Amino acid sequence: MILILASASPRRSEILTMLEVPFEVDAPRVDENLEVSYPAELPRLLAEAKAKEVSLRRKDLRTLAFDTLVFLDESPLGKPRDNNEAFKMLSALSGREHEVITGVALAKNGIIEESGQEKTKVFFRDLEPQEISDYIATNEPCDKAGAYGIQGKGARLVRAVEGCFYNVVGLPVALTLGILKNVKEA
Amino acid sequence: MILILASASPRRSEILTMLEVPFEVDAPRVDENLEVSYPAELPRLLAEAKAKEVSLRRKDLRTLAFDTLVFLDESPLGKPRDNNEAFKMLSALSGREHEVITGVALAKNGIIEESGQEKTKVFFRDLEPQEISDYIATNEPCDKAGAYGIQGKGARLVRAVEGCFYNVVGLPVALTLGILKNVKEA
Repeated sequence: MILILASASPRRSEILTMLEVPFEVDAPRVDENLEVSYPAELPRLLAEAKAKEVSLRRKDLRTLAFDTLVFLDESPLGKPRDNNEAFKMLSALSGREHEVITGVALAKNGIIEESGQEKTKVFFRDLEPQEISDYIATNEPCDKAGAYGIQGKGARLVRAVEGCFYNVVGLPVALTLGILKNVKEA
Repeated sequence: MILILASASPRRSEILTMLEVPFEVDAPRVDENLEVSYPAELPRLLAEAKAKEVSLRRKDLRTLAFDTLVFLDESPLGKPRDNNEAFKMLSALSGREHEVITGVALAKNGIIEESGQEKTKVFFRDLEPQEISDYIATNEPCDKAGAYGIQGKGARLVRAVEGCFYNVVGLPVALTLGILKNVKEA
């Protein structure tokens, strides 16, 4: 039985392929500007909204959705609007630790069957302003929450991680495999 | 000035390319069976031996070498000799933590200019025997220390890491950038 991956991210497709899970992509059409009183729950809530939306269009197929956010001091960092904002975000992350949380949700016919979220700590190196400008010039930051991608040229910004590495890329491996196993056995 | 990468590993070439360091590959010709009384130093010593050997052949160019070993309870695990040994190694790693240490050395004309090593903790999921057999059938374990690769299908075996992720793949990013910066500024 084929799974629907409710995400247009090529990085998530790569990880799911690496895990040998057969799937088909159908990008969600949801408003990501959810108002919530407890932002730490936002990744799971957004993943649930995406999974519901796609699974109502793709009836009888299971839909797997994700949402990844970067949190600095418990406030979510979105995608930078411009290079100036990217510079500010990367300067704020320099030399310290932040958290990346990815929410996961599995739905069928609009009903959430399983959901959860996974947290990984990321520790940045001390970055010099020139290094930040050079990285921004690669254009990698523009479409990424927190203005960096750990799996590309952004690897040079990171000193260490604590938790699932692929969670920072956008797909928590052990959590996702556990969710898929649960519904298979149910 | 071009750097010589003393490693035939395509994964190390990929990471160095990602870091935008210009290099040329020249594989070392050294006996990796060093006898040492303190095995935890082995990755750095092997990296130094590789860097020396290649830099003596490639005079006036800087040579960068690496050696990655997997340690379980402070004993190094090499590459498995056959599927049976791969099964034993992966069963031993299942459900617990181990360490991956990569040694780095930079040499010129046979003289070591900088060296060091970096440790990353890796936590495996609880693996079922069938899962281990399925992974061995992908042929990924055969040429890898500890019988797995974290950047491929082996990603499914890992629950979390603590430290530099790319160190587990074979090239510690922050340590290597620091070493290259030191010689550039010297």
